[in-house]
Amino acid sequence: MKRAYNFNAGPSALPLSVLERAQRELLDFQGTGMSVMELSHRSKEYDAVHNNAKQLLKELMNIPDTYDVVFLQGGASLQFSMVPMNLLGNEQIGNYVLTGSWSEKALKEAKKVGKTHVAASTKETNYTRIPATEDIQLSEQAAYLHITSNNTIFGTQWHEFPDLTVDLVADMSSDILSREVNVEQFALIYAGAQKNLGPSGVTVVILRNDLLERIPDNLPTMLDYRTYTTSNSLYNTPPTFAIYMLSLVLEWVKEQGGVKAVEQRNKEKAAVIYEAIDKSNGFYLPHAEKESRSLMNVTFNLPNDEVAKKFLGAAKERGFVGLAGHRSVGGCRASIYNAVPYEACEALAQFMDEFRKRNV
Amino acid sequence: MKRAYNFNAGPSALPLSVLERAQRELLDFQGTGMSVMELSHRSKEYDAVHNNAKQLLKELMNIPDTYDVVFLQGGASLQFSMVPMNLLGNEQIGNYVLTGSWSEKALKEAKKVGKTHVAASTKETNYTRIPATEDIQLSEQAAYLHITSNNTIFGTQWHEFPDLTVDLVADMSSDILSREVNVEQFALIYAGAQKNLGPSGVTVVILRNDLLERIPDNLPTMLDYRTYTTSNSLYNTPPTFAIYMLSLVLEWVKEQGGVKAVEQRNKEKAAVIYEAIDKSNGFYLPHAEKESRSLMNVTFNLPNDEVAKKFLGAAKERGFVGLAGHRSVGGCRASIYNAVPYEACEALAQFMDEFRKRNV
Ligand SMILES: Cc1ncc(COP(=O)(O)O)c(C=O)c1O
Ligand SMILES: Cc1ncc(COP(=O)(O)O)c(C=O)c1O
Ligand SMILES: [Mg+2]
Ligand SMILES: [Mg+2]
Ligand SMILES: [Mg+2]
Ligand SMILES: [Mg+2]
Repeated sequence: MKRAYNFNAGPSALPLSVLERAQRELLDFQGTGMSVMELSHRSKEYDAVHNNAKQLLKELMNIPDTYDVVFLQGGASLQFSMVPMNLLGNEQIGNYVLTGSWSEKALKEAKKVGKTHVAASTKETNYTRIPATEDIQLSEQAAYLHITSNNTIFGTQWHEFPDLTVDLVADMSSDILSREVNVEQFALIYAGAQKNLGPSGVTVVILRNDLLERIPDNLPTMLDYRTYTTSNSLYNTPPTFAIYMLSLVLEWVKEQGGVKAVEQRNKEKAAVIYEAIDKSNGFYLPHAEKESRSLMNVTFNLPNDEVAKKFLGAAKERGFVGLAGHRSVGGCRASIYNAVPYEACEALAQFMDEFRKRNV
Repeated sequence: MKRAYNFNAGPSALPLSVLERAQRELLDFQGTGMSVMELSHRSKEYDAVHNNAKQLLKELMNIPDTYDVVFLQGGASLQFSMVPMNLLGNEQIGNYVLTGSWSEKALKEAKKVGKTHVAASTKETNYTRIPATEDIQLSEQAAYLHITSNNTIFGTQWHEFPDLTVDLVADMSSDILSREVNVEQFALIYAGAQKNLGPSGVTVVILRNDLLERIPDNLPTMLDYRTYTTSNSLYNTPPTFAIYMLSLVLEWVKEQGGVKAVEQRNKEKAAVIYEAIDKSNGFYLPHAEKESRSLMNVTFNLPNDEVAKKFLGAAKERGFVGLAGHRSVGGCRASIYNAVPYEACEALAQFMDEFRKRNV
């Protein structure tokens, strides 16, 4: 079997050793005579998987005991609504920094729930950069400040988080666990699993315990964070297989040396592709400004649409998967999440060099 | 490898051939060099899986073109809220038949959304039966009548659906695809997948197209059925692996001869266990009244708690899994969904006979 060079934006590459283990165990989980998918979510075998996933995430991200970790369904998109439903009080204002399509969507859902304020936006320059902390203007009565830590579509990333006197909420869907972060800088972090954490179908939320006191009564049970914190995310049937895969991916991260080691490798992976861009004399046009570049999604364009099309066709022939930019912006994008090996990035950079030489 | 006799209530047994195929394909889906979990949800390969699941369900359940089939997350529990949010108008009343814990939970969520009415209930006899159609008293301005087609916990099942002049909504989580139903009797059907359809993590909703016109504006995007019908359930990242497993389970049902053939086998499976109960001279005490017995969840008690405990212990030793009754009712329960083979039911019935003879 030849593994594809998988640059999908999500769902995306998983570590080969994780897939191999899942395959080995698929018919008979730890001698139970059942697949992990066939276990009751109330069984002791599944409970161990569930708690292992939670414990490993706490350990790897250094999450203090003043926070809880819960597993939900519905993707990051459901969090766009759950965050304001749970945290945006009647007399308060949800503050949003707009750095791309995902923050716009988060804002759109918050507007349905309560009052909002755009604290900063880089839309007027087509989201090529992250605003400076000085450019963030909070409203009065700010319930929280929402940011998108990595902008999957535009390829920009916050490299320093704003340190303001407001609860910071971050959509970390596309860069969670890719670099060390200080969880204590955040009130709440959420992420769909399908980039750095596992397959699609489970969403991770890390939230500071005191936030629970702010949640209004009478929310739909499944949309109330307390439902998950009080039941260890077992109020109803969780997506057991997705959480099992999450536990395996987290074990893999630990084997790699933890988040610090993974971050170092991610920097090397991104560097080799950005280098191919930077030495191209403008043949490859990066979308993001240098200081705002993402280590997870490298976005670039080519001299014109025809050459871009040719590039994507040739890349596909060579076995590179997922390099087309998001349908909303076009161009090219290489998503190089934790499980994408350095070799894939190196192969892409080499291909980019060759293609440029043949097409300048 | 020895397969367990898996009587779990959900997540529950999956067909062995389905698990074997998933295992074979897990590292390399159709020569892509990727796991199905690593495919983009926007790729043509995943699209084929997604549409195949939808098409097979339409075919197997004979779903007319006036209905749509959508895939969601959040389990049946989220549908308890989505149904009233989408279908319960301001001046209307959501009508509920209470036949067990799950209908109670559905009602509880509806109360948070709007006005409700209990059209019938068998709670006063501890949910041992399904009410007769004559006992159902609809309110004025009924938005819909909600029923639980099979009561997983109490082991009762509707064998004939009420034919009233009101839109019928059914939670079919624990008996969808186990028997032939006329979809046109229903306005909306929902089911968490983890009993008859696949692993946990995907919820199927079948809804009549005209219902979409009733949906209020400004619902959270992820809680509006139109988000799913207009995007072919691809507005955001779907739980791709769970939907892939669903497609395999549906193919398996088709290979079995379709729903009619599966229903026949389910009747034989249930019969052999109910026979062990009925010939036991009251040693095994069935929870459900005879006419309301479920073909999916066989619930029974033993002469006293001590014998029941002994039974569960001995059963466990013999390799029977999941026979303890739901924590809210105690006793025993054998869940015998589609993928539980006849042989497992026969082995259980034999064991019940032996145990009885040793313990009367
Ligand atoms: C930063 C970010 N937020 C939110 C989403 C939406 O996630 P989901 O599809 O899980 O709803 C994505 C998906 O790519 C994303 O990249
Ligand atoms: C009839 C019925 N409805 C609803 C549910 C809840 O389903 P979920 O756990 O997917 O929310 C169950 C779970 O067992 C059930 O049996
Ligand atoms: Mg996407
Ligand atoms: Mg973006
Ligand atoms: Mg259950
Ligand atoms: Mg019940």
